[in-house]
Amino acid sequence: MNREELITMLDEQKYGAIMREMENMNAVDAAELFSYIDSQQIPRVFRLLKKDNASEIFAELDSEIQEKIITSMSDKELSRIMDELFIDDAVDMLEELPANVVNRILKSTSKELRQELNRYLNYPDNSSGSIMTSEVVSIHASMTVNQAVEKIRKTGVDKETVYVIYVTDNSRILKGIVELRDLLFAKEDDKIEDIMDSSIVSVHTLEDRECAVELIQKYDLLALPVVDSENRLVGIITVDDAMDVLLDEAVEDIEIMAAISPTDKPYLKTGVFETWLKRIPWLLILMISSTFTGAIINHYEGALGAMVILTSFIPMLMGTGGNAGGQASATIICGLSNGEIRMGNILRIIWKEFRVSILCGVTLSVATFAKVMLIDQTSVEVAFVVSITLLLSIIMAKFVGATLPILAKRIGFDPAVTASPFITTFVDALSLIIYFAIATSVLGL
Amino acid sequence: MNREELITMLDEQKYGAIMREMENMNAVDAAELFSYIDSQQIPRVFRLLKKDNASEIFAELDSEIQEKIITSMSDKELSRIMDELFIDDAVDMLEELPANVVNRILKSTSKELRQELNRYLNYPDNSSGSIMTSEVVSIHASMTVNQAVEKIRKTGVDKETVYVIYVTDNSRILKGIVELRDLLFAKEDDKIEDIMDSSIVSVHTLEDRECAVELIQKYDLLALPVVDSENRLVGIITVDDAMDVLLDEAVEDIEIMAAISPTDKPYLKTGVFETWLKRIPWLLILMISSTFTGAIINHYEGALGAMVILTSFIPMLMGTGGNAGGQASATIICGLSNGEIRMGNILRIIWKEFRVSILCGVTLSVATFAKVMLIDQTSVEVAFVVSITLLLSIIMAKFVGATLPILAKRIGFDPAVTASPFITTFVDALSLIIYFAIATSVLGL
Repeated sequence: MNREELITMLDEQKYGAIMREMENMNAVDAAELFSYIDSQQIPRVFRLLKKDNASEIFAELDSEIQEKIITSMSDKELSRIMDELFIDDAVDMLEELPANVVNRILKSTSKELRQELNRYLNYPDNSSGSIMTSEVVSIHASMTVNQAVEKIRKTGVDKETVYVIYVTDNSRILKGIVELRDLLFAKEDDKIEDIMDSSIVSVHTLEDRECAVELIQKYDLLALPVVDSENRLVGIITVDDAMDVLLDEAVEDIEIMAAISPTDKPYLKTGVFETWLKRIPWLLILMISSTFTGAIINHYEGALGAMVILTSFIPMLMGTGGNAGGQASATIICGLSNGEIRMGNILRIIWKEFRVSILCGVTLSVATFAKVMLIDQTSVEVAFVVSITLLLSIIMAKFVGATLPILAKRIGFDPAVTASPFITTFVDALSLIIYFAIATSVLGL
Repeated sequence: MNREELITMLDEQKYGAIMREMENMNAVDAAELFSYIDSQQIPRVFRLLKKDNASEIFAELDSEIQEKIITSMSDKELSRIMDELFIDDAVDMLEELPANVVNRILKSTSKELRQELNRYLNYPDNSSGSIMTSEVVSIHASMTVNQAVEKIRKTGVDKETVYVIYVTDNSRILKGIVELRDLLFAKEDDKIEDIMDSSIVSVHTLEDRECAVELIQKYDLLALPVVDSENRLVGIITVDDAMDVLLDEAVEDIEIMAAISPTDKPYLKTGVFETWLKRIPWLLILMISSTFTGAIINHYEGALGAMVILTSFIPMLMGTGGNAGGQASATIICGLSNGEIRMGNILRIIWKEFRVSILCGVTLSVATFAKVMLIDQTSVEVAFVVSITLLLSIIMAKFVGATLPILAKRIGFDPAVTASPFITTFVDALSLIIYFAIATSVLGL
């Protein structure tokens, strides 16, 4: 049965038949169907789901639909569904819900779960702790393979992964890691301490989540252990959550580079006023800074009045400078974000960008000189002024573009902030100063 | 032992001691150390590695170092290492090596492996087939859990994952999927057909790899089956490879948005000339298009000569239009890339961006009107011309920024191409036309 048929059935309110279909569907797809259900009917339809499916589908629902269902639930129903959610899914949900609903949920859950949820909710945003799950399988180094498999069979059903098993001592200190595949290929009475991997890659709860994702990506991990400052195992971050973070961060980088305040909300669900709020502060700041460029032009009003042709090269000179700087900064930002480039490389980068800018600058200057002479048919002096300005602007722009992101990172800013529009505005002003300085001295204006 | 100590040991050529350290290290870290080894010594050091570690570390080495080692190997050594590599690692390596080395490798491998490698190398770049691995565990639906586990034990050692097992019939047609955890929690004589999941999410070999990654991310899969047009299982894409693709694509998007030709090479390893080649065509194209903006200014030379103050607002008007358009296009590009926005939403998007642009435009126009009157102290007419141009430019820029990426995708381009610099150049010209049209009619120039 395809999506359209299902939606038709929903429109016809054939909820019984829909439920039977949902039971065989992937939870992600079943959850998607809920967005087509009339909002009044959502709680009723959700109650029709089998208990096994209900919590799985619940975890995948939009937070607005989750809220609708929760509001209609009794405390007992609520407590049951909270118990069945994976901790990280429950935390994600709580972070999206309004405070009064969160309080009601926390009240209805068991004391242990409440404590645990509170602990997660207190981890700072973007920390590794905030995206981990505490539902891990841990075993002792002295166990045999057989004993370990038994323990996994007994305790693993409600764990987020059973493929990576953590070896801890009595104080929960992480000693080693075993993969389920190692257990599968080992002899039944092999000791865990003999087959476990003790070169552990782990992350601290307060470490930036990007750092955790980097480790998962670098070492191709299914899950990364999260430890506290005494090296005690407190949870794991699974690869599927890491992938979600990676996607979020990529979108965030692009938003920052386009001068928009990052948002978690999908575009189509963000209101007009909210979108305006995300965009207007940056437009305002950029507009104010671009008035400085205008002030420079004002300052040279006399020169421009005497030779208006000079004005027509302004967009090309500013645009090319901005683009050349934007290229350099984008490259450096990518290099910084995947860990290739460090503060220590700055001299090497400046030297490289200097040579690239000479190549780019000379190419474009020669092309421009020819174009200005042949098509605009100005004097040689004007063509010379325009070409030499172009060359110097590109050298300056690549230098600014390459160094600014590194310096931004150094003082604790997101390097993406220094990308395109900001570099452009800064480089625009510098290009104009170069232009007028050369023009006034060469052309004697 | 930390990294610095290891590097010191390498400098002192204590290779024996280094080898003992490497045996306990993660293969990724061990491979990293090779980049510090004197290039003459690399093949000798590699030979010191234990056979078990050698192929694992080899897969993680830079392609230049791989090439150095291969060149020094006998055909027999080469054949052994190729047999031990996972197919997808081997394909990645072959794609990076020069043709003569590839030919030598293909000659020295077994016929079966050679055929398989050739098949992969022929899948188009960016297709799902090009990133899959064929080393999967497959079982029959009629098997019991016990039989299945036995089969995994016997055939799984050299498979990339044993956590997801594929149920196929005699013609290799994919019938269902079982996770190892399901086997672990099932009874020994349960039938696979009763516990397998038959709602399969799969991808076709020729489908774009981004599509495969999207499915893995959406459904939180450890591996995605790749099938041919008859629905026969030909391989799988594992989540770690999907993550690498996600990272590549994110960098590629940023590069395209900054008008650079995408590259797989790390920045510090790319030569100056090569970097120039990646950047100069776009700078040239953008420069040529910005001369049209210059031509517009030229056309209104008379008006500008009569009132030079108008020139000083050009950078602000063009900059703000470009930034407003860039914000809209970045948002839409992100929405398109994570599948939230489709062609069908275009009217809704235009309506939303129109309202946002009115809000942004009015805010900035009012601020500008006040600034021009109070600080620049121009006439009311000039202030009016500048503010109304700003409002109209922003409305136009948001419209262009929102629609262009969708149209680009529609006709088969990467939407990222329409981002920042291109939108800016286009919007710049339109803003100027609006400016001069209003200025000449209101101010009677």
